Amino acid sequence: MKRIKIKELLATKPESQTVTVKGWVRTFRNNQFISLNDGSTINNLQAVVELNSISEETLKRITTGACLSVTGELIPSLGKGQAIEIKVKELEILGDNDPEKYPLQLRNKPSLEYLREIAHLRSRTNTFSAVMRVRHAMAFAVHKFFNDRGFFYIHTPIITGSDAEGAGAMFRVTTLDANNPPRDEHGKIDYKEDFFGRETNLTVSGQLEGETYALALGDIYTFGPTFRAENSNTTRHLAEFWMIEPEMAFYDIQDNMQLAQEFLQYLVGYALEHCAEDLEFLNKRALEEEQAKPQDQRSELSLIDRLKFVADNDFQRLSYTEAIDILKNSNPNKKKKFQYLVEEWGVDLQSEHERYLVEKHFKKPVILYNYPKDIKAFYMRQNEDDKTVAAMDVLFPGIGEIIGGSQREERYERLVKRVNELGLPEKELWWYLDLRKFGSAPHSGFGLGFERLILFVTGMTNIRDVIAYPRFPGNAEF
Amino acid sequence: MKRIKIKELLATKPESQTVTVKGWVRTFRNNQFISLNDGSTINNLQAVVELNSISEETLKRITTGACLSVTGELIPSLGKGQAIEIKVKELEILGDNDPEKYPLQLRNKPSLEYLREIAHLRSRTNTFSAVMRVRHAMAFAVHKFFNDRGFFYIHTPIITGSDAEGAGAMFRVTTLDANNPPRDEHGKIDYKEDFFGRETNLTVSGQLEGETYALALGDIYTFGPTFRAENSNTTRHLAEFWMIEPEMAFYDIQDNMQLAQEFLQYLVGYALEHCAEDLEFLNKRALEEEQAKPQDQRSELSLIDRLKFVADNDFQRLSYTEAIDILKNSNPNKKKKFQYLVEEWGVDLQSEHERYLVEKHFKKPVILYNYPKDIKAFYMRQNEDDKTVAAMDVLFPGIGEIIGGSQREERYERLVKRVNELGLPEKELWWYLDLRKFGSAPHSGFGLGFERLILFVTGMTNIRDVIAYPRFPGNAEF
Repeated sequence: MKRIKIKELLATKPESQTVTVKGWVRTFRNNQFISLNDGSTINNLQAVVELNSISEETLKRITTGACLSVTGELIPSLGKGQAIEIKVKELEILGDNDPEKYPLQLRNKPSLEYLREIAHLRSRTNTFSAVMRVRHAMAFAVHKFFNDRGFFYIHTPIITGSDAEGAGAMFRVTTLDANNPPRDEHGKIDYKEDFFGRETNLTVSGQLEGETYALALGDIYTFGPTFRAENSNTTRHLAEFWMIEPEMAFYDIQDNMQLAQEFLQYLVGYALEHCAEDLEFLNKRALEEEQAKPQDQRSELSLIDRLKFVADNDFQRLSYTEAIDILKNSNPNKKKKFQYLVEEWGVDLQSEHERYLVEKHFKKPVILYNYPKDIKAFYMRQNEDDKTVAAMDVLFPGIGEIIGGSQREERYERLVKRVNELGLPEKELWWYLDLRKFGSAPHSGFGLGFERLILFVTGMTNIRDVIAYPRFPGNAEF
Repeated sequence: MKRIKIKELLATKPESQTVTVKGWVRTFRNNQFISLNDGSTINNLQAVVELNSISEETLKRITTGACLSVTGELIPSLGKGQAIEIKVKELEILGDNDPEKYPLQLRNKPSLEYLREIAHLRSRTNTFSAVMRVRHAMAFAVHKFFNDRGFFYIHTPIITGSDAEGAGAMFRVTTLDANNPPRDEHGKIDYKEDFFGRETNLTVSGQLEGETYALALGDIYTFGPTFRAENSNTTRHLAEFWMIEPEMAFYDIQDNMQLAQEFLQYLVGYALEHCAEDLEFLNKRALEEEQAKPQDQRSELSLIDRLKFVADNDFQRLSYTEAIDILKNSNPNKKKKFQYLVEEWGVDLQSEHERYLVEKHFKKPVILYNYPKDIKAFYMRQNEDDKTVAAMDVLFPGIGEIIGGSQREERYERLVKRVNELGLPEKELWWYLDLRKFGSAPHSGFGLGFERLILFVTGMTNIRDVIAYPRFPGNAEF
């Protein structure tokens, strides 16, 4: 008999039809009521075993975590808490689970830290299954958003010979014998002998390659893994994370900001529409977590309220210069409560400043633009004031920077000058510079850290809990 | 004025409305007719310059590859070859292109080999823009297929500490000083000092991690980059390629084969429906290429006919044992035309054998199943005959193996025994084996090489021409 998923079954009218479900036991009460979950939804299906219809021996094997196949009649539930249930006719144990040995003891509310150690099993909990279903929905929404708007998905390379962007420390990729690598006549490692005939690294961004496609296909985006070999053990950083980088020909910085806002609002709106049950669960979860905090550290809005707020309200746009003015005159600056006091134009903003603007001053997402060129990357378009570049950052409550982007410098001379000012290897960038030599066009783009989006949408607080198998210093298990 | 994409414009009724388009010049004839392409479609838009309306100097700058913004009236075309055209009112050169220096001389029909050297510009050709638009459509179709069926997309890790699958040679990922790595007291490289505190590699497959999620969420899939550090310089292998790996709880090998067929037919059908213009161009391109071949080496079907055939016909399913019988008694075997003669049950099939079955014997895609266990991976489910495993390969004309998969061994004792028989590190596989200890379930999955699919759908013949920046031995440029 064909198995039906529980999500589908829960939306089915019970007419005593015979159905088969397969899934894992969440609880088994009174030797009678099995709560079954198959991962298709956060909700369980109740399967009711009639007294004496199943052997003592089989009953003992219906333990939390055991895998069952159940066939029976779908009927309106007699009990509270669910609309339908299955009256069990046949029950088969597909996989036993010895509750004594099972590392996942749900009764004891395992900590998120402990669950990270058994990441191969944590997806069997309500929290992680909800997070991963939301993550899936967000990934699909990313593709749908761009596909509907005529963007093309480009797989930019993961292994790269280029390290010009300088976005961060890189991982080396090699097949050389670590113990006894080939050396040239000066005793240096001879990378000509390496797999690609040169030193190669894992990409930190697909942007530069993405630009080559934007200047051919118009609107493109990437969605792939990116890497940072930085020794940061924080709740906001991973060594391996997924990034979405759209790049659009003929967009200026204003178009870029508009797209960033529409994109984020679409994603959050999609989650509200398609993940209602999971978000309800995560909302409750976040509230419980909040209640353990002192009153003054709790959020003013619940998770779902925060999502609705973002989906429905324009983001505040202001220039870096305006932001500095606000920060200089802010209470925490005047009262020296900021760790880094804001004294002069040109300083890089710290997380505490971004949070002040978003959470205290404007109380909404903020897009900052036109940053000092000295604190931004070489490829950002230089403004006429000769001091700033057409950069933009989108700042979210609780998350900080969720998107960073810019209009790109499309003028060959300006770009080459900047490359040389910063001592970057002009020669290695030949292909990137070519784009400005041959039919250049104004264009813009941005990057969205996918895991930061998932943090925001799920209300989870540690980035290690929103990706299947987190990679961070000292950890590459599984 | 808001720019409109050419794809949209070509579907618009011309009513003398004023529109703005931006794009790159493909040709400029008689100082009057500009053929403009913006990458949104393979088709160009004709923009007509009225005589003497534009300065001599500007006219000279309208060269192939130059980037323009054109505003004018959208009117029915007076000439042949297009339904509409723009009567230019304003024209701005956004980016010049010196035709003398432009590396992409379309007039001379640049070879695919040469275009690989200027991969940052090749997306400006009809062929590569068509291929990349089809590639995008196929990626979207992958997500849509699975999303519509309630599968969840899982990002399995790229950097992995596990090398147990043994699917191929791996790239090492490291931050150790190559020149002077830390060593332990025995003089061995001390990987405890490496970024992750152990030796790590780039993944060859997300399957094992994918299984952990299938046994929690039910149906999942991965779609990410995978790597092989193999020194193969062929038209069918890349060092970095994208793979799709669905993994389904409660599927047996029959369900698995059915899903694989439905999946491929959906993808091909999607291409036929959504990429008609690009496929028409690629069809013509493939025909021209075929005509350079001797008669007897040409395909019987055109590209589009091949796609239709696959979309509409059931794949032939047969066991490995049946296939061996057919091959043993085949003409090329009896006449010793095969390079590897098929003499006994148990041999691995070579490409020539697969092609014979698909292209000569059945003349349709073939799914082979129940392979000898000795030529297949440790995790495949052992059949009752004790000789074969529930493996399956989908073989396509011109491509060979496009999908490989199996029912997975869900029985703990059997799996551990096989792991030890093959001398695999049981200890490192602790988490994979755990799945069989705690609520195990029958399950299946397969892997589709994305670039092989794109080869099939576009009719291109070298895998380096269906990915943005191919990685192969000696090449990691861009």
